[in-house]
Amino acid sequence: MTVATLSRGVDVRARKVIESGALSFGGGELVVIAGPCAVEDEETLLEVALGVRAAGARALRGGAYKPRSSPHSFQGLGRPGLKMLKDVAAAAGLAVVTEVLDTRDVEIVSEVADILQIGSRNMQNTALLKEAGRAQRPVLLKRGMSSTIEEWLLAAEYVRASGNEQVILCERGIRTFETATRNTLDLSAVSLLKELGDLPVIVDPSHATGLKELVPPMSRAAVAAGADGLLIEVHPRPEQALCDGQQSLTLSEFRLLMAQVTQLAAYTRQFSY
Amino acid sequence: MTVATLSRGVDVRARKVIESGALSFGGGELVVIAGPCAVEDEETLLEVALGVRAAGARALRGGAYKPRSSPHSFQGLGRPGLKMLKDVAAAAGLAVVTEVLDTRDVEIVSEVADILQIGSRNMQNTALLKEAGRAQRPVLLKRGMSSTIEEWLLAAEYVRASGNEQVILCERGIRTFETATRNTLDLSAVSLLKELGDLPVIVDPSHATGLKELVPPMSRAAVAAGADGLLIEVHPRPEQALCDGQQSLTLSEFRLLMAQVTQLAAYTRQFSY
Amino acid sequence: MTVATLSRGVDVRARKVIESGALSFGGGELVVIAGPCAVEDEETLLEVALGVRAAGARALRGGAYKPRSSPHSFQGLGRPGLKMLKDVAAAAGLAVVTEVLDTRDVEIVSEVADILQIGSRNMQNTALLKEAGRAQRPVLLKRGMSSTIEEWLLAAEYVRASGNEQVILCERGIRTFETATRNTLDLSAVSLLKELGDLPVIVDPSHATGLKELVPPMSRAAVAAGADGLLIEVHPRPEQALCDGQQSLTLSEFRLLMAQVTQLAAYTRQFSY
Amino acid sequence: MTVATLSRGVDVRARKVIESGALSFGGGELVVIAGPCAVEDEETLLEVALGVRAAGARALRGGAYKPRSSPHSFQGLGRPGLKMLKDVAAAAGLAVVTEVLDTRDVEIVSEVADILQIGSRNMQNTALLKEAGRAQRPVLLKRGMSSTIEEWLLAAEYVRASGNEQVILCERGIRTFETATRNTLDLSAVSLLKELGDLPVIVDPSHATGLKELVPPMSRAAVAAGADGLLIEVHPRPEQALCDGQQSLTLSEFRLLMAQVTQLAAYTRQFSY
Repeated sequence: MTVATLSRGVDVRARKVIESGALSFGGGELVVIAGPCAVEDEETLLEVALGVRAAGARALRGGAYKPRSSPHSFQGLGRPGLKMLKDVAAAAGLAVVTEVLDTRDVEIVSEVADILQIGSRNMQNTALLKEAGRAQRPVLLKRGMSSTIEEWLLAAEYVRASGNEQVILCERGIRTFETATRNTLDLSAVSLLKELGDLPVIVDPSHATGLKELVPPMSRAAVAAGADGLLIEVHPRPEQALCDGQQSLTLSEFRLLMAQVTQLAAYTRQFSY
Repeated sequence: MTVATLSRGVDVRARKVIESGALSFGGGELVVIAGPCAVEDEETLLEVALGVRAAGARALRGGAYKPRSSPHSFQGLGRPGLKMLKDVAAAAGLAVVTEVLDTRDVEIVSEVADILQIGSRNMQNTALLKEAGRAQRPVLLKRGMSSTIEEWLLAAEYVRASGNEQVILCERGIRTFETATRNTLDLSAVSLLKELGDLPVIVDPSHATGLKELVPPMSRAAVAAGADGLLIEVHPRPEQALCDGQQSLTLSEFRLLMAQVTQLAAYTRQFSY
Repeated sequence: MTVATLSRGVDVRARKVIESGALSFGGGELVVIAGPCAVEDEETLLEVALGVRAAGARALRGGAYKPRSSPHSFQGLGRPGLKMLKDVAAAAGLAVVTEVLDTRDVEIVSEVADILQIGSRNMQNTALLKEAGRAQRPVLLKRGMSSTIEEWLLAAEYVRASGNEQVILCERGIRTFETATRNTLDLSAVSLLKELGDLPVIVDPSHATGLKELVPPMSRAAVAAGADGLLIEVHPRPEQALCDGQQSLTLSEFRLLMAQVTQLAAYTRQFSY
Repeated sequence: MTVATLSRGVDVRARKVIESGALSFGGGELVVIAGPCAVEDEETLLEVALGVRAAGARALRGGAYKPRSSPHSFQGLGRPGLKMLKDVAAAAGLAVVTEVLDTRDVEIVSEVADILQIGSRNMQNTALLKEAGRAQRPVLLKRGMSSTIEEWLLAAEYVRASGNEQVILCERGIRTFETATRNTLDLSAVSLLKELGDLPVIVDPSHATGLKELVPPMSRAAVAAGADGLLIEVHPRPEQALCDGQQSLTLSEFRLLMAQVTQLAAYTRQFSY
């Protein structure tokens, strides 16, 4: 192996299990986080939350601050969105995973989020990584669009070196020349990190592929590759979503997916990684 | 979907099942092709062939003509290698899959090969594709290192337009910036092609990852993504292999892999694609 | 052209000339910004500043805050580094270009910097882009490692939409599979942006290639492609530099480079773009 | 430098000058090869040939055998196209550069071509490289779409190891995520090869960019980077071309280009590489 930093985790006993309330990443359970791309309105959010909870999801995702490529695209509801997330998740009995974009917002987002998400565009925003390292929340760190595995682990190291060892890695596809899918999901990275690293790894097939038809097979493949969890975009009416409707599952599609991956995770647990 | 050529296969009833003797690709069976990178000597080849046959492989792979990056690397045994392949495969009861590099060799390689392999470096060698289109053998067409799915299907179209509809696609990883793995295995491509194309798709996790430790988890992920078969490098003593030893499984590792993927394929057959 | 946002600049009369004190980007002059990767100590910085000023550079670059891949690498001197930059640049009669990494630092860095740099890793740090859009300083926006031209222009749009139209684009190489150079310098992007956009474009051949031997020919090529300026790493003793010594020119190499590019810029001004 | 094979050429005295009739690559002259993408009809070809000759081109390019992505695209005229090339080039006083796709055609193409072109899609077609190594013609070897500089030199090594030292390298852009240009022209590769290799290097800005507007600035940049020649697509009526019209210059645009690059080449000769 050429990734020097991977040496940190060779000892299986050193593998970290990251806990957030009743959730546990890296301990054998498949944790599914689901929800819409962005928080839009309370009614829709509650509909999603109750639906994904009933299907077996453990946490609610949803952006209050959205890092869009264009400043003219919907940027998220901001603080009112955070409040909605908190209220809805509490009502549904779900943990909250939401993204923070600005060092000045880490504190306020931490009041709502059980898990702080740092997105792909900010994977090498070292100021934000350091600030998240001072938060008392697990950090879900998405891989940068063109980050090597080594750079990804070094980004995690920024959080860890600032005092927060609770990092969950999230593979969400890398940028390649292929245009049929939004990104290229790199499941080898998941297996490599499970084999040699010490952090839990989850997979986001929605952003990776950009196509709802590929979310179920790539979720199954992620589970077979050893992923500790999944991050899935769900919207009750994808055609009306304010962002990323093309890659969102409906609630009934999500229920079917959950049945498959739950079974498959139980089945594949017999294989050592 | 933006890949126009994929429209050909939307109708499930049009999906092709490709048969070669007793082998059947795309009909629900998981076909495993195994063997060394290159044909080296008859004794070693027979040891591999008997071993992989006993473990459940259905075809023997092995290069008599090797397309190496450097002219100073081992180029394969050529015709004597072809003869060895034929004799050994017959003795072990396996079909033969071997690569052809030159339009002038298609005929002679077809006498030995049950399935003609066209490698990544020649995926857009249009003269070779056309010549393979005139052969009476199924063609295993590996994806080019930086080929889009659309270009890959168009390469298959060269074979088909020349009269040979028996094409099996083989995903073997694409070239990206990531250096921890030899290539980046693109399993989304497999699912996309299974969802929308009409040709069988198999996966080569050995060349894709370049690391034997990743071959088992990526084989499992490929099966979960819907692959119709696997192409696995196996060598009784990888450290002595003339090429690609780092990615070859031993016979005992291969047996373990076969047990896992056979079970998993039976299990995942319940999920529709 | 497929880049919709480029339509903004089709009218030649709309091309922006960005001025910072006596400096003028996009008005026909070739502006060279030079200096060390990081501010290390005042004596060295002054030696560089006087040397590059004598050779014809107009601005001093140097990082007080460094966005390194690893948290264990030198992170810059911070505020003391800013003060050094200010004092030394004033003494040498140079403008200051320096990077800002955190929204909370925009104000303090603006007190020292004549031009605020936003680096590749933060090209899609939308919070920082917005904050820079509220500063009263031109922003030098480096292209992200794997950003398309369109995404780069959209990042510039974040600054512009927040009220600051003074954006200078800086091409610094993109990430590809090639490993012989640190990145792949994309000079087509420079010509495309000069042809169709309205913002000045400069080139950083030092970070793009990572090899000092390639800095002179790539600087000449950048000028021939129509670049409005260059960003060059210079260190009096590259082998002692705290970062990126391999790509830094010595002062005497820089003098030679300046003689070449100044001549060439005058010569190529006759060609229309 | 990490490219081991580049060590071959460190000694400046060992740099090869490759001659073909009156043409000389690598000896200080800028050699421009121009013509249409494909040979279409004799009248058009003659019009182009006389036009580019008058403007200063030294060789005529044009495909008789075309390696198109789709088998349903125009594949070239074949042997009749070769004859047209020969007749027209003789009439215009130009050398012929044309592509060979099949090992079986090397002999017949060599009868017409002064320089044999091996295209990007066949850069690792080792059978073809070896056969070209037995021809008595210089070989113009285009870089593969995703080939590293090292692999490109190793492909050249296949030709050289088979007995033909007359190889001219041609940079034509590599495949990246950027979609605004057809490929990403890698001029750093040109400088690196001129700095450390022993073979002449020319540049094809037409295929690299896919946009005629970028052909002039990228031609100038290539000259400034040290290129020994240019390969330019020219068609009298690009909108009627059977392939690649979008990137073809008209004859009058080509004349303007020639005036610029001839001047610039004379000017930049003063800079050492």
